[in-house]
Amino acid sequence: MDEFEPVDAKEMPRFGGHATFMRLPAVDDPALVDIALIGVPWDTGTTNRAGARHGPREIRNMSSFLRRVHAVSHLAPYDLCKVADLGDVSVNPIEVMDTLERVAEFFARVHEAGAVPLSAGGDHLITLPIMRGIAQDRPVGMVHFDAHCDTSDEYFGGARYTHGTPFRRTVEEGLLDPKRTIQIGIRGSMYSAQDWQYSYDTGMRVITIEKYFEMGVEAVIAEARRVVGDGPTYVSFDVDGLDPVYAPGTGTPEIGGYSTFEAQQMIRGLQGLDLIGGDVVEVAPPFDPSGNTALVGATMMFEILCVLADAVARRRG
Amino acid sequence: MDEFEPVDAKEMPRFGGHATFMRLPAVDDPALVDIALIGVPWDTGTTNRAGARHGPREIRNMSSFLRRVHAVSHLAPYDLCKVADLGDVSVNPIEVMDTLERVAEFFARVHEAGAVPLSAGGDHLITLPIMRGIAQDRPVGMVHFDAHCDTSDEYFGGARYTHGTPFRRTVEEGLLDPKRTIQIGIRGSMYSAQDWQYSYDTGMRVITIEKYFEMGVEAVIAEARRVVGDGPTYVSFDVDGLDPVYAPGTGTPEIGGYSTFEAQQMIRGLQGLDLIGGDVVEVAPPFDPSGNTALVGATMMFEILCVLADAVARRRG
Amino acid sequence: MDEFEPVDAKEMPRFGGHATFMRLPAVDDPALVDIALIGVPWDTGTTNRAGARHGPREIRNMSSFLRRVHAVSHLAPYDLCKVADLGDVSVNPIEVMDTLERVAEFFARVHEAGAVPLSAGGDHLITLPIMRGIAQDRPVGMVHFDAHCDTSDEYFGGARYTHGTPFRRTVEEGLLDPKRTIQIGIRGSMYSAQDWQYSYDTGMRVITIEKYFEMGVEAVIAEARRVVGDGPTYVSFDVDGLDPVYAPGTGTPEIGGYSTFEAQQMIRGLQGLDLIGGDVVEVAPPFDPSGNTALVGATMMFEILCVLADAVARRRG
Amino acid sequence: MDEFEPVDAKEMPRFGGHATFMRLPAVDDPALVDIALIGVPWDTGTTNRAGARHGPREIRNMSSFLRRVHAVSHLAPYDLCKVADLGDVSVNPIEVMDTLERVAEFFARVHEAGAVPLSAGGDHLITLPIMRGIAQDRPVGMVHFDAHCDTSDEYFGGARYTHGTPFRRTVEEGLLDPKRTIQIGIRGSMYSAQDWQYSYDTGMRVITIEKYFEMGVEAVIAEARRVVGDGPTYVSFDVDGLDPVYAPGTGTPEIGGYSTFEAQQMIRGLQGLDLIGGDVVEVAPPFDPSGNTALVGATMMFEILCVLADAVARRRG
Amino acid sequence: MDEFEPVDAKEMPRFGGHATFMRLPAVDDPALVDIALIGVPWDTGTTNRAGARHGPREIRNMSSFLRRVHAVSHLAPYDLCKVADLGDVSVNPIEVMDTLERVAEFFARVHEAGAVPLSAGGDHLITLPIMRGIAQDRPVGMVHFDAHCDTSDEYFGGARYTHGTPFRRTVEEGLLDPKRTIQIGIRGSMYSAQDWQYSYDTGMRVITIEKYFEMGVEAVIAEARRVVGDGPTYVSFDVDGLDPVYAPGTGTPEIGGYSTFEAQQMIRGLQGLDLIGGDVVEVAPPFDPSGNTALVGATMMFEILCVLADAVARRRG
Amino acid sequence: MDEFEPVDAKEMPRFGGHATFMRLPAVDDPALVDIALIGVPWDTGTTNRAGARHGPREIRNMSSFLRRVHAVSHLAPYDLCKVADLGDVSVNPIEVMDTLERVAEFFARVHEAGAVPLSAGGDHLITLPIMRGIAQDRPVGMVHFDAHCDTSDEYFGGARYTHGTPFRRTVEEGLLDPKRTIQIGIRGSMYSAQDWQYSYDTGMRVITIEKYFEMGVEAVIAEARRVVGDGPTYVSFDVDGLDPVYAPGTGTPEIGGYSTFEAQQMIRGLQGLDLIGGDVVEVAPPFDPSGNTALVGATMMFEILCVLADAVARRRG
Repeated sequence: MDEFEPVDAKEMPRFGGHATFMRLPAVDDPALVDIALIGVPWDTGTTNRAGARHGPREIRNMSSFLRRVHAVSHLAPYDLCKVADLGDVSVNPIEVMDTLERVAEFFARVHEAGAVPLSAGGDHLITLPIMRGIAQDRPVGMVHFDAHCDTSDEYFGGARYTHGTPFRRTVEEGLLDPKRTIQIGIRGSMYSAQDWQYSYDTGMRVITIEKYFEMGVEAVIAEARRVVGDGPTYVSFDVDGLDPVYAPGTGTPEIGGYSTFEAQQMIRGLQGLDLIGGDVVEVAPPFDPSGNTALVGATMMFEILCVLADAVARRRG
Repeated sequence: MDEFEPVDAKEMPRFGGHATFMRLPAVDDPALVDIALIGVPWDTGTTNRAGARHGPREIRNMSSFLRRVHAVSHLAPYDLCKVADLGDVSVNPIEVMDTLERVAEFFARVHEAGAVPLSAGGDHLITLPIMRGIAQDRPVGMVHFDAHCDTSDEYFGGARYTHGTPFRRTVEEGLLDPKRTIQIGIRGSMYSAQDWQYSYDTGMRVITIEKYFEMGVEAVIAEARRVVGDGPTYVSFDVDGLDPVYAPGTGTPEIGGYSTFEAQQMIRGLQGLDLIGGDVVEVAPPFDPSGNTALVGATMMFEILCVLADAVARRRG
Repeated sequence: MDEFEPVDAKEMPRFGGHATFMRLPAVDDPALVDIALIGVPWDTGTTNRAGARHGPREIRNMSSFLRRVHAVSHLAPYDLCKVADLGDVSVNPIEVMDTLERVAEFFARVHEAGAVPLSAGGDHLITLPIMRGIAQDRPVGMVHFDAHCDTSDEYFGGARYTHGTPFRRTVEEGLLDPKRTIQIGIRGSMYSAQDWQYSYDTGMRVITIEKYFEMGVEAVIAEARRVVGDGPTYVSFDVDGLDPVYAPGTGTPEIGGYSTFEAQQMIRGLQGLDLIGGDVVEVAPPFDPSGNTALVGATMMFEILCVLADAVARRRG
Repeated sequence: MDEFEPVDAKEMPRFGGHATFMRLPAVDDPALVDIALIGVPWDTGTTNRAGARHGPREIRNMSSFLRRVHAVSHLAPYDLCKVADLGDVSVNPIEVMDTLERVAEFFARVHEAGAVPLSAGGDHLITLPIMRGIAQDRPVGMVHFDAHCDTSDEYFGGARYTHGTPFRRTVEEGLLDPKRTIQIGIRGSMYSAQDWQYSYDTGMRVITIEKYFEMGVEAVIAEARRVVGDGPTYVSFDVDGLDPVYAPGTGTPEIGGYSTFEAQQMIRGLQGLDLIGGDVVEVAPPFDPSGNTALVGATMMFEILCVLADAVARRRG
Repeated sequence: MDEFEPVDAKEMPRFGGHATFMRLPAVDDPALVDIALIGVPWDTGTTNRAGARHGPREIRNMSSFLRRVHAVSHLAPYDLCKVADLGDVSVNPIEVMDTLERVAEFFARVHEAGAVPLSAGGDHLITLPIMRGIAQDRPVGMVHFDAHCDTSDEYFGGARYTHGTPFRRTVEEGLLDPKRTIQIGIRGSMYSAQDWQYSYDTGMRVITIEKYFEMGVEAVIAEARRVVGDGPTYVSFDVDGLDPVYAPGTGTPEIGGYSTFEAQQMIRGLQGLDLIGGDVVEVAPPFDPSGNTALVGATMMFEILCVLADAVARRRG
Repeated sequence: MDEFEPVDAKEMPRFGGHATFMRLPAVDDPALVDIALIGVPWDTGTTNRAGARHGPREIRNMSSFLRRVHAVSHLAPYDLCKVADLGDVSVNPIEVMDTLERVAEFFARVHEAGAVPLSAGGDHLITLPIMRGIAQDRPVGMVHFDAHCDTSDEYFGGARYTHGTPFRRTVEEGLLDPKRTIQIGIRGSMYSAQDWQYSYDTGMRVITIEKYFEMGVEAVIAEARRVVGDGPTYVSFDVDGLDPVYAPGTGTPEIGGYSTFEAQQMIRGLQGLDLIGGDVVEVAPPFDPSGNTALVGATMMFEILCVLADAVARRRG
């Protein structure tokens, strides 16, 4: 898979060269790759602080820090799969409905080409059209890292499509199997004691942050594996699941989350599942003065990429 | 007008107390005031870097620096008029059309109550619904400070309502008299040589930044007064008309603009016109690390307030 | 208690509207409320980096992120009590003695009106005049979160009133019962090995950070409850008790503290005590580029508010 | 004067070595030098945003950028005079009156040793005790760069010693000759139309910023020379006289000032006057994210140093 | 030249898509283009604050703000020429001599392919190897915007290749014709009164900043045109020629420079000359908190691109 | 040891006075001290983000926060030893080989004078010449805190001296005994699965971050003591061993590290070993907007200083 190699840091320093995801080649045709790294620079679903539209650029920029091989699993995704940067989806910053269609079409095209997507948002609403693109044929399971359930119904003026509603919509549309969904890190003050009721009612496994610390990382991993089982599973990583010291650059920070090390353990713990895609969302660079949030976003993409490449390679046999 | 006085800095330091505009009382009923200071925290019309939704908060915060009396004209707006902070319009960050209605209704209510509005945006699209609220009965003239004409027709996917289109829409809707409109500071690279054609075609007076420096401030003031004449006139101040060193915290900076001192001279030069309202828009705090843009926004509001209070007092006789 | 409700985020986005504490109404008369949220924008007691004078504004600003109901305890403070923003105390940034009187008078007035105060500083010296206002009738106990004991005697040139001395002064003045006082998180290099001697000598329970990690959060909570017992108890939360990664925006950071999650657990563990007030101090926005310190300060205020409202409601029966 | 040379940048890069003023030797005894560079890290006279206490450190840091010889006048201060860094005055951040004494004593000692002081503040109140130290024998003239007259009488609670009052106090104490005083750059909104009355009443020459731009730099220099004449003259440079784009890191910014280039011209225009000292005040690093304000402060110190060294050398004959 | 068009902002928002220069296609083969936009991410020649190695990335990022057509000249470079992003030169951050070779080879290859280079640095030492690549056949003239002459001989430990020496080396190597060289904006304190002697001795036209303001922009343009005449001419734009308020993000700021508007006028005034390449250097993003320096750098590249495309098109006839 | 005392904060506030390490006297002659605090402001060995050249200045600045006595061990280094600030090594920012010699000479001189060095970098390459200066007579052991092994062989273009190679070079040169070396915190993606092979092959004890968390701090301390035994031992603390939330201001951050509290425990756990020097490296202030990294660097220097002073005092008997 030589043509899909990152630029070698001994030939171009890591601060040099085009800022593609992981310094991989930029490619237009998804049929050329096994795994497509895609940016969705869009935050019009954001109800509070916007800025995630700039996420893909800064995640790409910081992804230059990532090297080729995973230090713990020794997984080498570019040896296992053809991986490239498919660029950004053309999104409409003014219109929600138009963009939902554009994103869904883009991902459907990727899906039909046989590629598995790993995306950088953008706010969490992007996961809805991504799933419309790749999960039309059957509902999928999900490992969902977040401070928020994102299963609200409506917002301001009856808006049904915001970054607080994607996982109600995906359930309603038959794209997400709530019984195979686990939400990890849920916390923060509530509008009412019923804020998370939809998740509970539909059978999602909600691991509040208190529960998380009580169980410990190992047990949470085991529970995630139990919940999603061996069906097709998507990984959605909202950086606000992390404590905001790790990810201050996000729109709706909630103090008191897990650490990046713990998140890394959890993602590594997904190796062997039937992973069919993933995303890292809610990186909002304008609120990230040190750049650490984008670095975290890029590293989480690499963590997901490793287990995803492993899954793709296993499926290929 | 004792009840509508700013908090005295000798009784509460300027960094203390609630951050209302100019440290004035917060009031709900527009019928109580002559001039209503209003926030429109909304940037969903923004096609590039969002963040102006946070403008009203930071402008309020920085407006604590402003004192009671203008140093040059000695105008004392709170002696001339009842002025208060009417709070923010309830806006929908997700939906453009819904928000356009909300803003228009709010300003219609202010207008019907007999108050004159001075607003802090928000992006420049807010001027459209403001004018729908206050200019329904006759087209008004405008002194428009900006790097951009904002008379485009459509954007991405055919969007007709963005921060690049308000002054085409207001002309089309009969709210703005283009022949009584002057645009000062126009510059920046163009999509095509026809970018500003609508302004020219409808008879707006376009003062490019090159023209501006060639004419000098005095002549520009004279030309502005000539263009708007003695009819009702609105002042719209987009901070990106300034050079971005004065206002880096904005969504679409264009290098090579005028200075704050020059802008102050121009606003002061509007004294005596039949001013019926104004706004300061496109202050985007997430891109304003030193806070100077918000301070500039607040000071420009005070400059406009002084000439506006003078106009209101003159009309009152 | 409908009149004392936060602004609904579905009617005004969280970045809009006046930045009062928790988006609650601004009220002048303490007799109208059960719990008064008060700002004390003052840092003239600061011996190192000043800036806490700007704390109340930024804490108010960030408190817009907080919703109505506690996610773990399901306490809903606005259902239990009338809570409002009483504004800032009028403080004198130049003179210490004058300000100590002003603050004490303000809080005495609140106390006499029957309201319980929850304050945002300001530096830690503000707790002295607050206690003069509310603890004149009997010494109270205290749960004190901090990196420093703040029981020094004198500073530079013999100054007896600085942010390093409040808890010696309050003991001397009979406002604080040292035997019912616990200090949690004490650490940092020392001027001499006797720096904390006054705390030890008067019987305060000093939990150094090493002790803290050795005991664990549960045991610390139990010890705090044992120390303060069922007498009246004040909660004073200095953000420098946290590790500075959670609260870089403070005047005297000491590396190696507890996390916000742990602090949240500890405050929640105070439910059921006879709480009579609290404060969050030493948030210094000029040293807080990401804003996280102010967010932490606001969230800690909400955590204290929940257990305080519960205490007020219990006392009311 | 070989022993009082800056560190050579070809032997130690400019970012290396101890951060003394201009990379000069640190010296304790003022009798060893002709010109003493002194820090006064104190801002307790500040009525709004504090932070100037950190000014001397950052000005020292940025002064490493300065080289040995003036590019226009070719004045080489270290060839003309013995110049060194005398360190900081021991100031009391809690008590105003104590500090006024400490500073006055320090400067009296410098003065008695025959050295001429050039200081870095600190807020503008420091100029009062500096003048108590060096102008006891006769009132001196002053070239005062500032946005504010600083001739107020009282502030909050009757405070007579703040950074808004030094030039009323120095006139009252017979240290400053108002008829030989020129204030350049005065502007900003006013508490009342009488804010600057004391300056006018005592005969100070007030050059408002409008007047400044009307006259032009050359005429302002001529006027300054005329006003101070050939008597002993002090130069006080408040960085808020500059437009805040040049000096955002200051406590009371007022938009619409002069540029650094213009300020440089004005200081250079003072060559030949009987200069007896100077200061650069109100550099507040916590509000200076780019560091430019401190660089400006350091460069203005160098500009003053050149004309001051020339004056000292001339007096020496 | 349809294939070398910037991405259309109506199809991809300006914050989306790969961050190439001007949103142009990334191309490897210089033979495909008329003008090659090239990054040289290297700052090992920097004697003070490094960081310009990150310049090309941030200039690319900010260049997304630039549109297709020049607002004043109406030059449309992508209609006139084939322009593309050739990527970054592979540079060695550790070794100066190795990098000088790498850069020279890269530019020689571009030159031999018939393309004209426009580069983003990197520190100013990059201009030496660029000229080795493109000016081997004859010395060229230069319009050099800078605060520093960059004609020093040696630095620390005898280093002959630093960002302070390129224009002595290029003269010595016969690449630069000093009599056809003009240096505009020279200023700053000096190591000795002879700092600029090499420039004077070799016949360069040195326009100090004082001279600049005395002459005015028009006369400076005329003088530049006179000096370079109609021979081949290179444009080198060091952002530290600008006042540091426009370009704080640079390694060796000197206060008191020209504005971006003035710089734009000067570059536009070069239209019609026989331009053979250019560069924008010394943009150091780590010192650029607002991003304005990178925006300025990108805009200056566009300004140069317009006159360069015009020259290329004229030569083509 | 009265002459080598930090400035007393009750005589000079901590933000005042010259910014020497720990506010200690600046001294030139190493023979006067037991422990020499030394800055090495150099980052030309950096392969990615430079900036550590500014480390010594900011570490000095932040070290003003440190007091005299260790809170846990009650070690008082200035009672045990004569400690002073020896200033910075004269380094050449352009040339690697020249600087390696300069640094080695400086430290050899310190070593020969009988002083023990504790240094602030600078990038990690500085440890090579430091060891050349102090370990010529016998290989020493090392406790090495880092995210990276720094035992690579070559980089870009065959460069053998970079911040990624010092511990291969020191082993090759017989300065470091790999069997008495422990590396703690190793992690991050890898160029290949063999990245750390040299460490393994030579017998270094590599504690990856996963291993670290598995073992726990106590066991890691025990293992470190076992590995280095009672031979002479150097402590090298690269701040990127910490999680980047504690130290964002560094050149090669790797998420998922240990906390400052844990690092403090580990350093304290070295008390009693035969320590012969130490360093804190890779603090890069341009990437440290909150200043916390420099504060952490300064505090770690103090932690090392305490155990080092104890070792020196023990050896002295």
